Amino acid sequence: MTQPTAEHIDWTDPACPVARTLDVVGDRWSLLIVRDAMDGARTFGDFQQSTGIARNILTDRLRRLVRHGIIDRTPGPSGRRHIYALTPAGRDLFTVVVALRQWGERHTFAPAEQHSVLVDESGVPIPELQPTDSTGQPVNPDTTTVRKVR
Amino acid sequence: MTQPTAEHIDWTDPACPVARTLDVVGDRWSLLIVRDAMDGARTFGDFQQSTGIARNILTDRLRRLVRHGIIDRTPGPSGRRHIYALTPAGRDLFTVVVALRQWGERHTFAPAEQHSVLVDESGVPIPELQPTDSTGQPVNPDTTTVRKVR
Repeated sequence: MTQPTAEHIDWTDPACPVARTLDVVGDRWSLLIVRDAMDGARTFGDFQQSTGIARNILTDRLRRLVRHGIIDRTPGPSGRRHIYALTPAGRDLFTVVVALRQWGERHTFAPAEQHSVLVDESGVPIPELQPTDSTGQPVNPDTTTVRKVR
Repeated sequence: MTQPTAEHIDWTDPACPVARTLDVVGDRWSLLIVRDAMDGARTFGDFQQSTGIARNILTDRLRRLVRHGIIDRTPGPSGRRHIYALTPAGRDLFTVVVALRQWGERHTFAPAEQHSVLVDESGVPIPELQPTDSTGQPVNPDTTTVRKVR
């Protein structure tokens, strides 16, 4: 377990893990940068090309992601361009990115519209994530409760 | 399958379901509002109290969420206050919220810090989500590929 951010942030809702995650990566560009890093982007130019993000915003978001322990920045082989790579905590956002992807597949495409697909090493699409209880039964907002910190 | 947003948005990256989801709910406040709706918030005052969000931002985000088919707004019993409730597409963000929560639990709390916990009807914490391939084997960014639309 890493705690990339514990000392740096004025948390919106300190006892809530959902809110803390959103304080760290809860903006569109940060999560698109993480998506692209998972998909092979390694340089400033890679991210700029894949997201179409403005240079100043990209600079700011990369800096934030480095500061929060999501991305590591190291000098490239030539010593000129930096190389960006996900940290273990950054790679662990995979489940979040998959959940965002699958919701988008279900709710933001018309039947005739095509979208990219996440596939395994055999080219088979990844099954949908389903939260369950400890016995494997599906759960939903009605069958779960957030137990607050006392 | 609903397509709450297909006609309203100038998509950042039209073929990518991750990017489309972020275009719809990819800001901290929208996802905190969804979290609170799952947790029982129903009125403007409920959301204001649970998020501590400024009134003008809350008004804007609720309007956006209604426009994008994530939340329904109906007149309350007295005819004065509106009642906000998640649509089926909004409820289906449960998996995203659970994934955000679990990442936050793993990476944003120091060992001694307490956080809220999502529990099932028996009070048992919900197990961690794990993306798998179709045979049930865990997958990660290295063992999956995004197959682009041609």
